[in-house]
Amino acid sequence: MIIVMSKNATKQEIDNVERKLTDLGFKTHPITGEVKTVIGAIGDKRALNTVNISTMPGVESLVPIMKPFKLAGRELRHEPTVADIGGVRIGGPEITVIAGPCAIESEESFIETAKKVREAGASILRGGAFKPRSSPYSFQGLEEEGLKIMARAREATGMKIVTEVVDTRDVEMVASYVDMIQIGARNMQNFRLLHEVGLTSKPVLLKRGLAATIEEWLMAAEYIMAAGNEDIILCERGIRTYETSTRNTIDISAIPVIKELSHLPIIVDPSHAAGSWKYVGALSKGAIAAGADGLIIEVHIDPPNALSDGPQSLRPGKFAQLMDEFRPVAEAVGRSMGAR
Amino acid sequence: MIIVMSKNATKQEIDNVERKLTDLGFKTHPITGEVKTVIGAIGDKRALNTVNISTMPGVESLVPIMKPFKLAGRELRHEPTVADIGGVRIGGPEITVIAGPCAIESEESFIETAKKVREAGASILRGGAFKPRSSPYSFQGLEEEGLKIMARAREATGMKIVTEVVDTRDVEMVASYVDMIQIGARNMQNFRLLHEVGLTSKPVLLKRGLAATIEEWLMAAEYIMAAGNEDIILCERGIRTYETSTRNTIDISAIPVIKELSHLPIIVDPSHAAGSWKYVGALSKGAIAAGADGLIIEVHIDPPNALSDGPQSLRPGKFAQLMDEFRPVAEAVGRSMGAR
Amino acid sequence: MIIVMSKNATKQEIDNVERKLTDLGFKTHPITGEVKTVIGAIGDKRALNTVNISTMPGVESLVPIMKPFKLAGRELRHEPTVADIGGVRIGGPEITVIAGPCAIESEESFIETAKKVREAGASILRGGAFKPRSSPYSFQGLEEEGLKIMARAREATGMKIVTEVVDTRDVEMVASYVDMIQIGARNMQNFRLLHEVGLTSKPVLLKRGLAATIEEWLMAAEYIMAAGNEDIILCERGIRTYETSTRNTIDISAIPVIKELSHLPIIVDPSHAAGSWKYVGALSKGAIAAGADGLIIEVHIDPPNALSDGPQSLRPGKFAQLMDEFRPVAEAVGRSMGAR
Amino acid sequence: MIIVMSKNATKQEIDNVERKLTDLGFKTHPITGEVKTVIGAIGDKRALNTVNISTMPGVESLVPIMKPFKLAGRELRHEPTVADIGGVRIGGPEITVIAGPCAIESEESFIETAKKVREAGASILRGGAFKPRSSPYSFQGLEEEGLKIMARAREATGMKIVTEVVDTRDVEMVASYVDMIQIGARNMQNFRLLHEVGLTSKPVLLKRGLAATIEEWLMAAEYIMAAGNEDIILCERGIRTYETSTRNTIDISAIPVIKELSHLPIIVDPSHAAGSWKYVGALSKGAIAAGADGLIIEVHIDPPNALSDGPQSLRPGKFAQLMDEFRPVAEAVGRSMGAR
Repeated sequence: MIIVMSKNATKQEIDNVERKLTDLGFKTHPITGEVKTVIGAIGDKRALNTVNISTMPGVESLVPIMKPFKLAGRELRHEPTVADIGGVRIGGPEITVIAGPCAIESEESFIETAKKVREAGASILRGGAFKPRSSPYSFQGLEEEGLKIMARAREATGMKIVTEVVDTRDVEMVASYVDMIQIGARNMQNFRLLHEVGLTSKPVLLKRGLAATIEEWLMAAEYIMAAGNEDIILCERGIRTYETSTRNTIDISAIPVIKELSHLPIIVDPSHAAGSWKYVGALSKGAIAAGADGLIIEVHIDPPNALSDGPQSLRPGKFAQLMDEFRPVAEAVGRSMGAR
Repeated sequence: MIIVMSKNATKQEIDNVERKLTDLGFKTHPITGEVKTVIGAIGDKRALNTVNISTMPGVESLVPIMKPFKLAGRELRHEPTVADIGGVRIGGPEITVIAGPCAIESEESFIETAKKVREAGASILRGGAFKPRSSPYSFQGLEEEGLKIMARAREATGMKIVTEVVDTRDVEMVASYVDMIQIGARNMQNFRLLHEVGLTSKPVLLKRGLAATIEEWLMAAEYIMAAGNEDIILCERGIRTYETSTRNTIDISAIPVIKELSHLPIIVDPSHAAGSWKYVGALSKGAIAAGADGLIIEVHIDPPNALSDGPQSLRPGKFAQLMDEFRPVAEAVGRSMGAR
Repeated sequence: MIIVMSKNATKQEIDNVERKLTDLGFKTHPITGEVKTVIGAIGDKRALNTVNISTMPGVESLVPIMKPFKLAGRELRHEPTVADIGGVRIGGPEITVIAGPCAIESEESFIETAKKVREAGASILRGGAFKPRSSPYSFQGLEEEGLKIMARAREATGMKIVTEVVDTRDVEMVASYVDMIQIGARNMQNFRLLHEVGLTSKPVLLKRGLAATIEEWLMAAEYIMAAGNEDIILCERGIRTYETSTRNTIDISAIPVIKELSHLPIIVDPSHAAGSWKYVGALSKGAIAAGADGLIIEVHIDPPNALSDGPQSLRPGKFAQLMDEFRPVAEAVGRSMGAR
Repeated sequence: MIIVMSKNATKQEIDNVERKLTDLGFKTHPITGEVKTVIGAIGDKRALNTVNISTMPGVESLVPIMKPFKLAGRELRHEPTVADIGGVRIGGPEITVIAGPCAIESEESFIETAKKVREAGASILRGGAFKPRSSPYSFQGLEEEGLKIMARAREATGMKIVTEVVDTRDVEMVASYVDMIQIGARNMQNFRLLHEVGLTSKPVLLKRGLAATIEEWLMAAEYIMAAGNEDIILCERGIRTYETSTRNTIDISAIPVIKELSHLPIIVDPSHAAGSWKYVGALSKGAIAAGADGLIIEVHIDPPNALSDGPQSLRPGKFAQLMDEFRPVAEAVGRSMGAR
């Protein structure tokens, strides 16, 4: 850590900061420039949890040198993590595709969709039972009944299942049904919920917050890992910018940045990023080519009658066609798409 | 609602959309331009919860004409709401000031701070018992013990108390201690938590999300109101932008926009917006002059040793001096600051 | 165009707006809802250049139905434009690669770089002679001497050359040397400069502004086209967001959006988007797979001694290796990379 | 400056960086932590214009300690600059108000507007003769004829006049007519134009770019100052964010930040920030209370027939009423509004 003293800092103030740092166990290295003094401090930053160096008189700013995430970072664990979702792997040589409708609406339509996305090559089935909707007047999901339908779809197709949890009170129940638990973008900094899913033994699909930095996202992963659950799959789903021609702006550069900073696998959600099914093909191919470990795509058998997110849902036929188009892209970057 | 058909839409597609709208109870008014047809549709938009017009063939986009919020909007309720926090009013002629430390750290320091901010003119006491910290390794709050300290500070000073709740499981317990419940920025779209505080009878201080639009913010208020609780105070606390010289960018224009769209009172949090105590004075005066109904300001008796948010905390002496400076600004816009 | 009247608009106000629109040659279609009236208006929007309907009493807002760009849009010209840069085509089946250093520093190093990028498969050579640097104390370019070096590099390699112009006074001179003129991100709304390059007969590489919407970008193209020059190549180079782990956030979704709205070709600049050579490979592959028509990449023979943008420059060897990696990605989406 | 070496940097790489810095005249102070080494370097950063330390093998990042602006910063000049626009001062105890229409449309209407804003208390008259319009089909301004009208309005009212320049070729001519030259938001990084106005002897009103950081803004001022012109007035006019309920988001915190970093005066443009006349009053009061040195406000005698920016223009009567409301706010923060 580097402490930058303001140009008006007195010798007394500089000495006070050094003394405080020494008391906290840091080794200090002051460097006196022509205008400002900076102090290098070596030691365990956690000692700073109880003190605010930056508010001491004469201090201008603090420059951290080490990243704040430990478990999620590459420093302690060099090898990429390959997550195992009941036998389906994310982060290995294969591109893993998760597909299904935004919300589970009925058993019949859900299982029909499941069979179709399975046939097209998806290996994990998505579906919302608890929907975080921006209006209280919109459809909020079938709740536990939806989870039962998911479980039956798993039986019918052999796929693994993933659903979002939105309330700490539901975590245990949801974990008892599904193979992977999703934390949605709006809950990426719902720290209690992160802690709670960290106590389960199910892999966690952690979506990036609507306007979360990559560092905040990795700190959210750190919360889950600090609670004991290390099977985390990051999911880029577009960030909020000033541009309105897509619902969000997909941050494709997050893929190589995450690969550099973290050992965790990363997949991409082109459906929520774009907000329109028309762009899902282009964004998916871009994500695979940029190094993503997988995709999560919304598919609905009848988008005009979808209870949620119809505009961004692909029909099964279009999804199958795109899966065929993804295959050569995956191969061009040394990956595969799995058997169909 | 206006449905814009694409320029390639066929007559058949236009007819299908009109028929679907008519079936849903809308009255339709097609307008045929030289390039595109648009269809005006009059009726109850809630009928659209089960159908996605925008995914029907030939449809380019939907343009909503009415705002999606009903209870939080000015359409049904013209008069401004004045919230009553155990006798302290927010939204009336007086500027209400909430002050206190970021986190409750000990009974002694908290009550000392309370007495000082009370003396300077604050009428509501803030303090965090459950802290949403971006690192799992940071101080997370004293939890229920903190609430007990708050209650004793209320007794000692006569102030009202407000604290943040972060977990649906804690809502009832928190509501039993405090006079007002805070929903933090990171939980603005934690819809389960919004619903849960909507079931209590305590006023809710609803912070704007880190990157929430004003419409999303009012829809969050709508969630609480739809659950039965209509005492909501909005709190602008800065939004996320590309600018890094302040922690967030305070959106002062949200004040007149909210006053136009909603009947709810709005206060401003200059401490979290700026991220530095140095700017709190300027931003507070700007907020009052722009029409805010109150302020929430972080004050700590010893910022360098604060367990959370030290850099943005004012010392009590500086806070008292600023309160004196706020008074003439409030009066310049026809408000008052209350007796000291 | 749709005019939304406010809920308090009087009949008189509605009549006034209709009458004004009729006077301007519009056919009007009022639709009276339960709360608000909207007026559909069919006609030539250019009539509105002399009047502001939106400021008439009782008007809440205007909703445009048609896009504001005509020449750059797909409405008048359905077929994709293939730009011709002295024989090198952009927008056809081949992925075109532009490469070279940020700034031209010396003839020797520039020609050496040119030969190496040519050998690796690039067909157009980039190099800055007029540099828009954010500090007045940084190297500003060799100006006309730089253009002469570029011309000699063209002779030596057979490549086409592109450079940025930053001043209306230089346009004619720059156009006399190069095969394509670049408008940089900072000048995307320098409308005089756009007009001036629109008067030349050289193709224009139009970079997206740092925080420009896609609509503003196409309106900048419209400026050039309205002056008579229709050979425009759009260049996505990352937009400004809150994320700081890359210099800008590449907006890969701009590729399919532009393909839908416009007939103009679009290339991607991964070097400026990322700000670091480490991410150039991943972003380039992502761009090709998402449908880009080309790339513009910074290559320098000695990045540590580059006078500008060293951190994002690739060494020629790394560039050649990446070009080999791009080839299968291009083929996976039905494109080719040209002979090497 | 601090050089952070990557955790895998070899001793050789660290030595190379130190040697390079020493060669460039820096004094180096390496600090070896448990994971990483950082090197403090004291010296003249301009030596780095010819070398990129950050691309040397083993270097992770560079952390600047000193601000990049010298002339615009507070380090060399502690006292606030008070700009003198032909006798009208900006940056002194008085709040200076600039008012007038967006564009000059006719002599009659312009002089009528001038008289009215003068009467209401404005001391400088604004009006656009060269308009940077986002569409090539919109009114582009009366050009030199507009400047002649401005000069006559100055004679008729005794006000000082300011207009925007958009082309390097016009700078000398514009400077011969007006008392202050405006650089618009879209040209804030048109470095040639900055240099050119820096060569004149007229004060420069420098608007913040649409998405410019405060540091970039001060570097733009530095360009003008480096060319010899030190009379610069900064103008905050709203920045681009994701929020759409106002045209831009006014960054009121820029006022105290600029006051801390720079000696230059700062005014606020609430009209362009809001995009609607309805919010101009609230934002103006907020700006004055937060410490702005002045305002620039759009006033038009007939907004519905304004050729540009009608929706955000105030009528003269409303402007006069607001000026009366601004007076007590200015006084509440120890400023005055000048005689009316």
